[in-house]
Amino acid sequence: MDKIKIGLVGLGTVGSSVLKMITENSDKVQNITGRSLSVKTVVIRDVAKHQNQVPAGVTVTTDLNAIINDPEIKIAVEVMGGVHPAKEVITKLLNAKKHVVTANKDLIASAGEELAAIAKHNHCDLMYEASVAGGIPILRTIVTSFAADYITEVKGIVNGTTNYILTQMQRKNWSYDLALAKAQELGFAESDPTNDVEGIDAAYKMIILSQFSYGTHLKLANMSVEGISTIQQSDVQQADAFGYTIKLLGISRRIDDGVFAEVGPVLVPKDHPLATINNENNAVMVTGQAVGETLFYGRGAGGLPTANSVLSDIVSVTKNIVLGTTGNSFNNYQSKVGKVDLNNVIYPYYLSLNMLDVPGQMLKFTQIMTQIGASFSRIVQTSTDGQTARVVIITHEMSKVQLHDLKQQLLAVDTMSLLAAYKVL
Amino acid sequence: MDKIKIGLVGLGTVGSSVLKMITENSDKVQNITGRSLSVKTVVIRDVAKHQNQVPAGVTVTTDLNAIINDPEIKIAVEVMGGVHPAKEVITKLLNAKKHVVTANKDLIASAGEELAAIAKHNHCDLMYEASVAGGIPILRTIVTSFAADYITEVKGIVNGTTNYILTQMQRKNWSYDLALAKAQELGFAESDPTNDVEGIDAAYKMIILSQFSYGTHLKLANMSVEGISTIQQSDVQQADAFGYTIKLLGISRRIDDGVFAEVGPVLVPKDHPLATINNENNAVMVTGQAVGETLFYGRGAGGLPTANSVLSDIVSVTKNIVLGTTGNSFNNYQSKVGKVDLNNVIYPYYLSLNMLDVPGQMLKFTQIMTQIGASFSRIVQTSTDGQTARVVIITHEMSKVQLHDLKQQLLAVDTMSLLAAYKVL
Repeated sequence: MDKIKIGLVGLGTVGSSVLKMITENSDKVQNITGRSLSVKTVVIRDVAKHQNQVPAGVTVTTDLNAIINDPEIKIAVEVMGGVHPAKEVITKLLNAKKHVVTANKDLIASAGEELAAIAKHNHCDLMYEASVAGGIPILRTIVTSFAADYITEVKGIVNGTTNYILTQMQRKNWSYDLALAKAQELGFAESDPTNDVEGIDAAYKMIILSQFSYGTHLKLANMSVEGISTIQQSDVQQADAFGYTIKLLGISRRIDDGVFAEVGPVLVPKDHPLATINNENNAVMVTGQAVGETLFYGRGAGGLPTANSVLSDIVSVTKNIVLGTTGNSFNNYQSKVGKVDLNNVIYPYYLSLNMLDVPGQMLKFTQIMTQIGASFSRIVQTSTDGQTARVVIITHEMSKVQLHDLKQQLLAVDTMSLLAAYKVL
Repeated sequence: MDKIKIGLVGLGTVGSSVLKMITENSDKVQNITGRSLSVKTVVIRDVAKHQNQVPAGVTVTTDLNAIINDPEIKIAVEVMGGVHPAKEVITKLLNAKKHVVTANKDLIASAGEELAAIAKHNHCDLMYEASVAGGIPILRTIVTSFAADYITEVKGIVNGTTNYILTQMQRKNWSYDLALAKAQELGFAESDPTNDVEGIDAAYKMIILSQFSYGTHLKLANMSVEGISTIQQSDVQQADAFGYTIKLLGISRRIDDGVFAEVGPVLVPKDHPLATINNENNAVMVTGQAVGETLFYGRGAGGLPTANSVLSDIVSVTKNIVLGTTGNSFNNYQSKVGKVDLNNVIYPYYLSLNMLDVPGQMLKFTQIMTQIGASFSRIVQTSTDGQTARVVIITHEMSKVQLHDLKQQLLAVDTMSLLAAYKVL
């Protein structure tokens, strides 16, 4: 039986799980692809540190050329992470005619188009299922199973760290700081958690999901991205009392002729499927004109679930090698989209305000709301320290333009301040 | 641009939705596949009845040869349903070198292997994503995304009719008969609902899911299949009081060296994701050694969702035609499995019994349970009419062998009878 040799760049959590899966599940892969797969070479920064993690017969080196110059190695797997030098590494690999599988969302979200062009030029495959939602096979599903449908919305919980923190804040009444510290202790959050907790990681994933769903290339700079670091325990409790769970959602919708994508805390009704996705789990909902609402749920991170997605790419590349059909883009769908009118981006909002505890404040707020043409369905004064009162409101549907106006108007009022404005699903 | 013509056999709910989707979403399909797809010929029994449902330029005929003898038609879609004459139709189409897409679960479950061999012999594609769980793209996901993982269990709600009936029984306290009548009125159940309500439709789908998950060919005759027609409203209420929802689940698990698959009513804890799948929706949970627990949720039936799965197959076949890679099986995974020891098929059970309302009955029952080595965690006497009492029990885990022994022993006791024995998840 023909053998296909693989080169691995990086041997962290995902890399070592990929190595484990290729070794342990080789029979099934052989059964399906008719090829025997094995890792021949691992490229890492510190050989001494990882030498004993690798089975006998596998070369461990710091030199990428050990993969690039080895004609036996057909597929390279990049699991080092980060944009640089991963971008340069993948470029070199593709130019050396190696098919590349990567789990690198930062890189794909920011330079995916460029790398796809390099892959195409070299008639190589470039696949990155693992870059979004770990073990959930969402990208390939959109490509293959919704190919003929017109997707109108893709949304979901696509960051495990923040979902873990929010779940603990909800269940254990922990503050954000405590929940973050616990998440770091358990390895669910990195020592510098910025990318996760500020929503940037989720935004990268929404960029990739939008590309697959709508054929469009969004830019991080054009997206509204809000994280969870300012969510108060009192907001979690108040949302709960209203019948909602706060989740960090990425939402990408067709509006007008365009696509509007953003990441931020959202109040999700407790009987909504997304409200039941807890801890480090991820879920993606895809709505299509024909198929209706679908949901894909699974582990969003972790070595083995992510490795499973890497393996699904390796199997796809192997099939393409066998069939002689490499060099086609992972996602062919390309479409120009127009502009979105922010007057048409409409949601109800959860607003949390501090007001000076003196007569006339609520009247003033109501006047501002009336002036911008907005109204509210629920209002609660939750606490007062004698000087300032905390007031929580759920509005009727209002547009991004109205929300912007509201924020501007409130800035001019020195007796009240807006602490939070979260969408309500 | 090259054109690919399609022949459609059948023009019911799914067929007319396929026609609509191909017509309306042709731009996106063209964008992805580089080919323009259109339906050229529709074969149906009653031309006069359907003539006006079809756009101008599409031939409507009763003669299958209009597809078979047309060299322009590359892909045929069978959506007539039923085993005969669908099997003969598909055989003829494949022997005429047409690629075939079908939504026919009865046929694929009972003759899929045979038809796959005919397809292979003719270097044709045979795909049937729509045969399981309507709009949920579960088969292709198992093939492509879990290819390298070792699947240990696949289970789910794979019949929309029974899930609709059970949802109504739960929410509205309707009897089974009333809920069935309403489902028939609304078109969610057929006038002869046997295949759905007796679990046969779900069993067919579990056979196909097991083939994809484990590479094994199960036979309906070897499966334990129980439907929902004997579920009492009192069971639904009692399950609810215990914190469970009764769902008709198909469960297929690796046990020992084999695969154990069955269909039957199961008590699902209310906080389990499957408990939140209501009405005609379907959901499939796949558990893999690497990926862990994943769930796929969507509409299990209906014209457009099912048509979307048919279209995903058409797009896959089209890509294969473009790449020159037709003739590969939809699912290549083949694996021999061994026997399952029924002593190792273990669940807690919900038991409902009628007992003569005289002293000593509970002692007798407890003696029987002790004799077979089983025990129970909860027991409720729900009602008595003075003569017989209804007793409901949740057992600790017990094996299929113990359950069989219990049923045998109870048959010999004329003062009590077992009304229901449902697994507890």
